[in-house]
Amino acid sequence: MSVASRAPEYIRAIRPYQPGKPISELAREMGMPESGIVKLASNENPLGMSPAARQAIVDALAEVARYPDGNGFALKAVLSARYGVKPEQIVLGNGSNDILELVASSFLRLGDAAVFSQHAFAVYPLATNAAGARCVEVPAVAYGHDLDAMAAAIDGDTRVVFVANPNNPTGTFLPGEALEAFLRKVPADVLVVLDEAYTEYLAPEQCYDAIAWLTHFPNLLISRTFSKAYGLAGLRVGYAFAHPDVADLMNRVRQPFNVSSLALVAAEAALGDQEFIARSADLNRRGMAQISVALDELGLEWIPSAGNFLTFRAGKAAAVDAALLRQGVIVRPIAGYGMPEWLRVTIGLPEENLRFIDALRAALAETRAG
Amino acid sequence: MSVASRAPEYIRAIRPYQPGKPISELAREMGMPESGIVKLASNENPLGMSPAARQAIVDALAEVARYPDGNGFALKAVLSARYGVKPEQIVLGNGSNDILELVASSFLRLGDAAVFSQHAFAVYPLATNAAGARCVEVPAVAYGHDLDAMAAAIDGDTRVVFVANPNNPTGTFLPGEALEAFLRKVPADVLVVLDEAYTEYLAPEQCYDAIAWLTHFPNLLISRTFSKAYGLAGLRVGYAFAHPDVADLMNRVRQPFNVSSLALVAAEAALGDQEFIARSADLNRRGMAQISVALDELGLEWIPSAGNFLTFRAGKAAAVDAALLRQGVIVRPIAGYGMPEWLRVTIGLPEENLRFIDALRAALAETRAG
Repeated sequence: MSVASRAPEYIRAIRPYQPGKPISELAREMGMPESGIVKLASNENPLGMSPAARQAIVDALAEVARYPDGNGFALKAVLSARYGVKPEQIVLGNGSNDILELVASSFLRLGDAAVFSQHAFAVYPLATNAAGARCVEVPAVAYGHDLDAMAAAIDGDTRVVFVANPNNPTGTFLPGEALEAFLRKVPADVLVVLDEAYTEYLAPEQCYDAIAWLTHFPNLLISRTFSKAYGLAGLRVGYAFAHPDVADLMNRVRQPFNVSSLALVAAEAALGDQEFIARSADLNRRGMAQISVALDELGLEWIPSAGNFLTFRAGKAAAVDAALLRQGVIVRPIAGYGMPEWLRVTIGLPEENLRFIDALRAALAETRAG
Repeated sequence: MSVASRAPEYIRAIRPYQPGKPISELAREMGMPESGIVKLASNENPLGMSPAARQAIVDALAEVARYPDGNGFALKAVLSARYGVKPEQIVLGNGSNDILELVASSFLRLGDAAVFSQHAFAVYPLATNAAGARCVEVPAVAYGHDLDAMAAAIDGDTRVVFVANPNNPTGTFLPGEALEAFLRKVPADVLVVLDEAYTEYLAPEQCYDAIAWLTHFPNLLISRTFSKAYGLAGLRVGYAFAHPDVADLMNRVRQPFNVSSLALVAAEAALGDQEFIARSADLNRRGMAQISVALDELGLEWIPSAGNFLTFRAGKAAAVDAALLRQGVIVRPIAGYGMPEWLRVTIGLPEENLRFIDALRAALAETRAG
């Protein structure tokens, strides 16, 4: 018997996450210059990162040979001050992906179950499977979460419920009142993970204050990231707010130096530049209008999105995607999310959006003709 | 029942890793300026990182808002070329800590066992416990691994054996022939993790070629890091070489973007600057001589070390450590490793070593008088 064949069945069954295609990979495959490629595949901020974050990284370069502060004292202090949570309620992660995996490895074991929605973020089943636990996928309604059905799906085996708001890859949004009503229904010993990776993109009238709920719901965990609006995807930093007992367990399980020193200083500086976040959200609103109007003109169905991306029904999505790639435009196929006819496009700079719209028009003409 | 109280018993029992005290933390606690503090606590490279790595980071700053290449194509290509392994034999980690945890989560489950030596690296039991598996700690001989006893400790439950060479925190070294003989004794379905975090510091006559063994032992995994000699501890990057089937499993379990983009480019550049590694090893040899002579003069027992650190018997180690901290010198207490009378000091720059020696002399006088 080999080592690999003796690994747990639930490990051998894992299929890896399919990330957005890197620009360098497409350039290699197609023999294109990288500069000619537009990537709208990973919900990255087209403005990059805040100049303050860049400066913080440069200032910290002299200390790269030192281990990071494993407790993230300084970043926790600014998160604490900004959001009114105690440092002992905070868990820092190597991206919010790390937060989601820490939830799974801390609270799920063989025989346990996790509940999440159809078309929800792919890391929920991945993390659940890696812990040997069972996935309970609840059918979506209009591509969004059906909170009543999710509450009804909770049983004695359920230890974790994942809720994405807005949801990725569909962009659907749940109002704060609906979430609060859901929390009231969930048993106190089931952890509700509210994944707010895209919360900085919400319109003012959509905003709700989940952090205030932590007082009443000790089984609530709020997960956020610096990878999206804050423009630090390459550096990997996310965070969770939770009850101190929940945070304490996850802080024991996490790797002692899970967040790099450059990520810590960049996130701290990025959090201080809210003008950059406002500018990013504004750019996103205009780009969302630009692309949705174009999709209407092309007669394509799209799902209203509260994030920095738009998911549209491309029909022969694999062929359309291939035609886009040949034109140097990378978007995200989401067949793996049970949506084989759909593609997800990240809102980019106005000129990137235009490049996408023109390439899509050509791709549709080509695939419809073919 | 609360969420935390329903977490698995083996999770609630975890005690977190105790890292070396950060300079900023001591400065806060003691009201000292950071510039007056010497940290010789975490086996960091006192020369920092290679200038080539620094330049690579600066050159990559414009792309921080992009997700990293989750497959690490470019870094795997240079590792592959340098070490003659295929890219599919490589797993990249968020530090080698991530590699060790990936081993545990991929190959250990409840009821399985992992074998390692007394006084070996603290992450072996931590990762084993987090997977719900059982730790089998084999008594050390002269503070080093007893490979015969470790082979004898393997039973039907054993899925993983961790071997550190050199060992941290004791610095003990196992010759290549002993390791190869050990590999011949281990059943083919038990993974042997050879942790070579400090391999760049071996003296020329100590060097052995574990990579060549991969051909004959598909159950061998070699773990290495850029955190020590390469000076990239703050950025978190390590790697493993293993059989493609073993690497494939770990690559499915790992987080899709576990290594940051700045870590990937820095590691790639650092690997290309072997002159820096030679200079670091040379500085280490001279510092090792400087400190061991001083310890002899102070009449303190020390363990011959093949790493970039030296472990010595301080007697009342906690009191000596406290006295060193008051003088702004941070070393590493290792009571948690079952060595309550000992301290571990990292080899620093000549002037840092001198600062340590002087502070140690004063600390000993103080604690012996008290």
